[in-house]
Amino acid sequence: MSYTYTRRYTGPLQAVVLDWAGTTVDFGCLAPAGAFMEAFRRHKVEITLEQARGPMGMPKWDHIKAVLAMPAVAAAWVTRYGRRPDDADVDSLYETFLPLQVEVVDRYADVIPGVVDAIASMRQRGMRIGSTTGYPRQVLQVVQKVAAAQGYEPDIAVAAGDTPTGRPGPAMALRCVIELGISPVEACVKIGDTTLDVEEGLNAGMWTIALTDTGNEVGVPLGEWSLLSEERRAALRAPAEERLRRAGAHYVAGSLLGALPLLDDIEARLARGERP
Amino acid sequence: MSYTYTRRYTGPLQAVVLDWAGTTVDFGCLAPAGAFMEAFRRHKVEITLEQARGPMGMPKWDHIKAVLAMPAVAAAWVTRYGRRPDDADVDSLYETFLPLQVEVVDRYADVIPGVVDAIASMRQRGMRIGSTTGYPRQVLQVVQKVAAAQGYEPDIAVAAGDTPTGRPGPAMALRCVIELGISPVEACVKIGDTTLDVEEGLNAGMWTIALTDTGNEVGVPLGEWSLLSEERRAALRAPAEERLRRAGAHYVAGSLLGALPLLDDIEARLARGERP
Amino acid sequence: MSYTYTRRYTGPLQAVVLDWAGTTVDFGCLAPAGAFMEAFRRHKVEITLEQARGPMGMPKWDHIKAVLAMPAVAAAWVTRYGRRPDDADVDSLYETFLPLQVEVVDRYADVIPGVVDAIASMRQRGMRIGSTTGYPRQVLQVVQKVAAAQGYEPDIAVAAGDTPTGRPGPAMALRCVIELGISPVEACVKIGDTTLDVEEGLNAGMWTIALTDTGNEVGVPLGEWSLLSEERRAALRAPAEERLRRAGAHYVAGSLLGALPLLDDIEARLARGERP
Amino acid sequence: MSYTYTRRYTGPLQAVVLDWAGTTVDFGCLAPAGAFMEAFRRHKVEITLEQARGPMGMPKWDHIKAVLAMPAVAAAWVTRYGRRPDDADVDSLYETFLPLQVEVVDRYADVIPGVVDAIASMRQRGMRIGSTTGYPRQVLQVVQKVAAAQGYEPDIAVAAGDTPTGRPGPAMALRCVIELGISPVEACVKIGDTTLDVEEGLNAGMWTIALTDTGNEVGVPLGEWSLLSEERRAALRAPAEERLRRAGAHYVAGSLLGALPLLDDIEARLARGERP
Amino acid sequence: MSYTYTRRYTGPLQAVVLDWAGTTVDFGCLAPAGAFMEAFRRHKVEITLEQARGPMGMPKWDHIKAVLAMPAVAAAWVTRYGRRPDDADVDSLYETFLPLQVEVVDRYADVIPGVVDAIASMRQRGMRIGSTTGYPRQVLQVVQKVAAAQGYEPDIAVAAGDTPTGRPGPAMALRCVIELGISPVEACVKIGDTTLDVEEGLNAGMWTIALTDTGNEVGVPLGEWSLLSEERRAALRAPAEERLRRAGAHYVAGSLLGALPLLDDIEARLARGERP
Amino acid sequence: MSYTYTRRYTGPLQAVVLDWAGTTVDFGCLAPAGAFMEAFRRHKVEITLEQARGPMGMPKWDHIKAVLAMPAVAAAWVTRYGRRPDDADVDSLYETFLPLQVEVVDRYADVIPGVVDAIASMRQRGMRIGSTTGYPRQVLQVVQKVAAAQGYEPDIAVAAGDTPTGRPGPAMALRCVIELGISPVEACVKIGDTTLDVEEGLNAGMWTIALTDTGNEVGVPLGEWSLLSEERRAALRAPAEERLRRAGAHYVAGSLLGALPLLDDIEARLARGERP
Repeated sequence: MSYTYTRRYTGPLQAVVLDWAGTTVDFGCLAPAGAFMEAFRRHKVEITLEQARGPMGMPKWDHIKAVLAMPAVAAAWVTRYGRRPDDADVDSLYETFLPLQVEVVDRYADVIPGVVDAIASMRQRGMRIGSTTGYPRQVLQVVQKVAAAQGYEPDIAVAAGDTPTGRPGPAMALRCVIELGISPVEACVKIGDTTLDVEEGLNAGMWTIALTDTGNEVGVPLGEWSLLSEERRAALRAPAEERLRRAGAHYVAGSLLGALPLLDDIEARLARGERP
Repeated sequence: MSYTYTRRYTGPLQAVVLDWAGTTVDFGCLAPAGAFMEAFRRHKVEITLEQARGPMGMPKWDHIKAVLAMPAVAAAWVTRYGRRPDDADVDSLYETFLPLQVEVVDRYADVIPGVVDAIASMRQRGMRIGSTTGYPRQVLQVVQKVAAAQGYEPDIAVAAGDTPTGRPGPAMALRCVIELGISPVEACVKIGDTTLDVEEGLNAGMWTIALTDTGNEVGVPLGEWSLLSEERRAALRAPAEERLRRAGAHYVAGSLLGALPLLDDIEARLARGERP
Repeated sequence: MSYTYTRRYTGPLQAVVLDWAGTTVDFGCLAPAGAFMEAFRRHKVEITLEQARGPMGMPKWDHIKAVLAMPAVAAAWVTRYGRRPDDADVDSLYETFLPLQVEVVDRYADVIPGVVDAIASMRQRGMRIGSTTGYPRQVLQVVQKVAAAQGYEPDIAVAAGDTPTGRPGPAMALRCVIELGISPVEACVKIGDTTLDVEEGLNAGMWTIALTDTGNEVGVPLGEWSLLSEERRAALRAPAEERLRRAGAHYVAGSLLGALPLLDDIEARLARGERP
Repeated sequence: MSYTYTRRYTGPLQAVVLDWAGTTVDFGCLAPAGAFMEAFRRHKVEITLEQARGPMGMPKWDHIKAVLAMPAVAAAWVTRYGRRPDDADVDSLYETFLPLQVEVVDRYADVIPGVVDAIASMRQRGMRIGSTTGYPRQVLQVVQKVAAAQGYEPDIAVAAGDTPTGRPGPAMALRCVIELGISPVEACVKIGDTTLDVEEGLNAGMWTIALTDTGNEVGVPLGEWSLLSEERRAALRAPAEERLRRAGAHYVAGSLLGALPLLDDIEARLARGERP
Repeated sequence: MSYTYTRRYTGPLQAVVLDWAGTTVDFGCLAPAGAFMEAFRRHKVEITLEQARGPMGMPKWDHIKAVLAMPAVAAAWVTRYGRRPDDADVDSLYETFLPLQVEVVDRYADVIPGVVDAIASMRQRGMRIGSTTGYPRQVLQVVQKVAAAQGYEPDIAVAAGDTPTGRPGPAMALRCVIELGISPVEACVKIGDTTLDVEEGLNAGMWTIALTDTGNEVGVPLGEWSLLSEERRAALRAPAEERLRRAGAHYVAGSLLGALPLLDDIEARLARGERP
Repeated sequence: MSYTYTRRYTGPLQAVVLDWAGTTVDFGCLAPAGAFMEAFRRHKVEITLEQARGPMGMPKWDHIKAVLAMPAVAAAWVTRYGRRPDDADVDSLYETFLPLQVEVVDRYADVIPGVVDAIASMRQRGMRIGSTTGYPRQVLQVVQKVAAAQGYEPDIAVAAGDTPTGRPGPAMALRCVIELGISPVEACVKIGDTTLDVEEGLNAGMWTIALTDTGNEVGVPLGEWSLLSEERRAALRAPAEERLRRAGAHYVAGSLLGALPLLDDIEARLARGERP
């Protein structure tokens, strides 16, 4: 037979998969960094905020391992302990970190302004709301409770540990697809604030929108951000946007609310036979 | 910022997701059709082999519902029972069908010639072996036991009912991606013998290869097929290939063994930045 | 329904549509130019060889009209006759031209070296041989007789006047498609030596190969061409190739024999799903 | 020379090529099916409406041959006559069918609501109106007379038998291109109600629009269709649309009138350099 | 690493690179042709206006060489001097031509109607104004003075001889990019009235807009053009447009003012990730 | 006119534009970092090797400004001087840096192994050798002398300050195009070891190849690199490759010699009508 047929989905978006900290809650993505710094401090090795934020978006055990692999941190570890850090050290740090995280996370779980409206708008256009996070289940539960009280409840929430592998792999995002009964995958948009969010979405075959102002790459608390001049905001946003775009994000927006008009653009591209 | 960056995966294939009946076992895909016909017969409504085969690839409950929705079958049902069939009738037929299927399926579970070699070849190039099926778990277990005894054991087998929705949705194929830790999804190839297999793969974002000679669309037992002239085979293959291509299959091959060279072609396309 | 399916032909080439003068017979495409010049001379207006060749490839009546529309020729006409030329003048010139053309054309009908072998090779790969020409039927008949005696007989020959409109329209090429029973049109290659040949092929939806060395754009007789240095040939070929490429020719070759390897390239592109 | 030039047509649509039964006349495409069933009945072999409709769009002799090749029909023939049907049987059936068709076709030639307006609108935008049909000339003449009386007269009508080969080949559509003097072919749109119409248009290199509600794939008479709920219409339309899309139709519309806005979309795509 | 990232510029246009004669000054591009004709006349060889215009857009020394290479001119030279022209003849003609050009050019330097407004509009959207010319510096200086007095002053003007090679190479246009600090090159549009302008722009990697009405390809003075019927204008414009499009111009407009809306179209294409 | 024509260059590569330190000389790109660190030390503010390397590839004045803008460095400056650093501080640091750089650079100018052979191979395929650098002219002169003595002499060398703007802008690379008389720009390949090299090439419209092993992103001296295990090399190469690919490099190679086979791949892509 001498013909091939190429199928393209031209229908509407069906679901969004949202990250938690820095995307829907915790403006500035502050919770994890502080707990990481404190956990290292209790192990007698200081790390900077920048080091703590580096691999943000990963499952937290993997995150700690990644920080320990940074040359400067590894060197400090060697200085302190006379040997390179190993997986047992990661375990130990994680055991310190987890209760710290659980303990403090409710202070960093406020829903970001505009999120409740954005979710309502997405639901109104028929989209389901999935979510994934680098937090383990215990931490996520705390966050979910606070968020629900403030009006944000996604249809499903997948935590680190719910799937054999985490970000940058697509497993958590695909769990949302399965549980929400979405078909095809290109009817989904992943929205998050880190390069690992972008990679999770791309690896799943989804459209990706990366957020700057509310997230980890800018890393400024809401109170502080509100007081900044537009010029200063632009200066902080530019390098964040560059990192997120270079990871392959299809779009970049300031916040979840700011991402809404992009959904129309994505649907227009789907209608023309384009894919993520 | 005035630049966008488009990411493309250029690495090797990482996994295959294989259908069972008609693809790796049960040359001609004969098991389900017979049980369906018998189940209907016991409900006093006769269906043809062609009608029984129509929606092949679906979860079996959905399959029965689809057969009942065919105008001719629905008409026969009305004639027999004086009313249109409903979900309770599907349940009843399914309850009849399932033990029939379990009972006879071991007679239809022989591994298709060439499959064991094809699997070995795929593993040699570093690919993991996933599998999905329209069979429920009880039936699949019988088939797996026979297949294993003959040398075919995939790394994972997802059955109808393991996910909230089945084919043509992508859920079962994506379960394979999650459990096997694959990233990105476009590093996977779905191989099956029905249009529903093709749709499952496309909806998941995978490359798709459809098989003709060993499968449901041709529907001829191995013994009979062996005796056919090449001309007669071509005549049976042509309409099967047309249906599979029109569903959007990227490739069509005669059998799993015949699909092996296509894997090189797919990897060459990935290396050029193409996607499924 | 939310899917579109794009069909692409991936099979072999099925037919070629060949121009006559300058492509398969009459190396240098000399016949028409001389008769045009003589017809004008008999009407007391001299035209140059370059002017005579300009619109080569058109039906000859249209060709005469196009020459008369050239500013310099129109000016000369006005000088001679005190008025701009009209359609009656085209008729008159055409009546002079046609018998001149018929009279001399057998001297310009020798099959170009390599053509018989090229045709044999095309037939061997399963291609049918169509042909079209700007010659009217009376002239073509003379040419066909000579060509047949030298071993070139296409499966069909469409002359100017056989269709309501001629080049650059696609009508003559499409008549070949109809009579030869070809499907789809993109399984055809148009080969000719003028920009009008290229346009005829593009307008029909065919692949196009333009010939330089043997054709009108170079316009050098075989005897003279044989004696030229390769450097001089290249100098004559360059502007011819540029005009033909700028008309949109997919490929340019020196002669029909030289075009043979391009057929493999076209089939490889068809197999990848490309179109003309 | 180191440059290639790719030409693209960016002008307006110039012509439409319309099918007859199910597209411009005979809502539901009822005429041929009845005559086929009757012709078989007179040969003592009953066929179903579904079987009679299967290959709709083909020249009628080919259509009868295709029905005879269906396994169930062939089996019935063997049962009745003790041998497989051959071309003499096709001839015999066709001889029965043709007068039946001529006799009844005027009852099935009413112009479909909206067609006259749609044609006027197409003409207003400068498009010529071509038409092709699987009917032989004798049958078409009857239909044309009725249609003309109701206000529908295309610029040209090509019947089965006017060209050496019929659908799915492009010959009839290309005859329209030739006779209407269209250039290039991609300035044409083929509109019809069967997968064979779609293939005819694709094989000619035209844009294709397939119609559901008024045509053979849905197959419901106007009176009945008018009474259906929108939900029931959608249920009938869905599988028809799927078959037509899987044949590669660029667009699907309910009726000719409903196809009008698509012409603007096609012209916008042409203007961007896209092709069918 | 198994990913590639493709970068695309999606920002605004940053600069335009404008030709001088026929584009921003000297409606009809009359200055150079007259001086060429006079220079040849003084060397006892007459050339036609058409021959004089042929290679317009080149550096003038190269232009004279190209005219001398035309078969008819070369033949006339041989008749007059008994030998083929050589580079010394080009030098001699150029020495005659240059002062003639300087002498007369101020009569051909009037800014074309609409240019001053077009420039203002481009500057308002943030674009810088570059310019290149086939004139040598001495001639350009005369033109610049007249143009400035009439309100047209580009940010930079590169003359023939300022770069090692001229048109059709990209050197002059790239000098504008360097001096104006533009990045990336695809943020530039080259606008000119000759095929050499188009090639200069394409070779530099810029968008190209070719102008018909005011330029060399039409070659009609403003006074005469103003009196022409729209029909006559269209007849003159058509072959000019064809030559310019076949050189690969992205767009064709009548005048610089008429090109303004195309800038929006280009920016829309950049925003979609397209490139020149 | 209703056609557009898209031109594509299908000829050979004509030139390469090479970076200096880390690409052709100074394995590991060590010279600049040391001088930067020393210049800061003399201003009583210590910077790390990582900070010194960050903006590598920029003109050195811009580089110093970029280092001063890093939050940690700016903070240290404030601590030391009680005020944020300004342009006068950049001037002062640059005045300290420049003689330090000139003084030591000859120790860091050894030609990288394989470069002389790679250049010979490029010249053999007809390519010209351009070069650009972030070094100012005084520093480049020292390096050129050492390199020439070891057999590496490019056809042209453009230094920081030779053009109004430097990297990431395209000016220096375009100067090479102008001086070498290349046309079109897409016949050039930019090769360098930093993300700024990649951006310079992309902004110019060139193909880009980024080098890992010999360059700044890995930053290991030749002696040390020679002793590393392949596993350790891969670990150092991976993040370097990721940064370079995310900047949009078309290809990544270990060294200039390793980049040679990629030139064939680029020419094959050009021949297919692809662009950088």
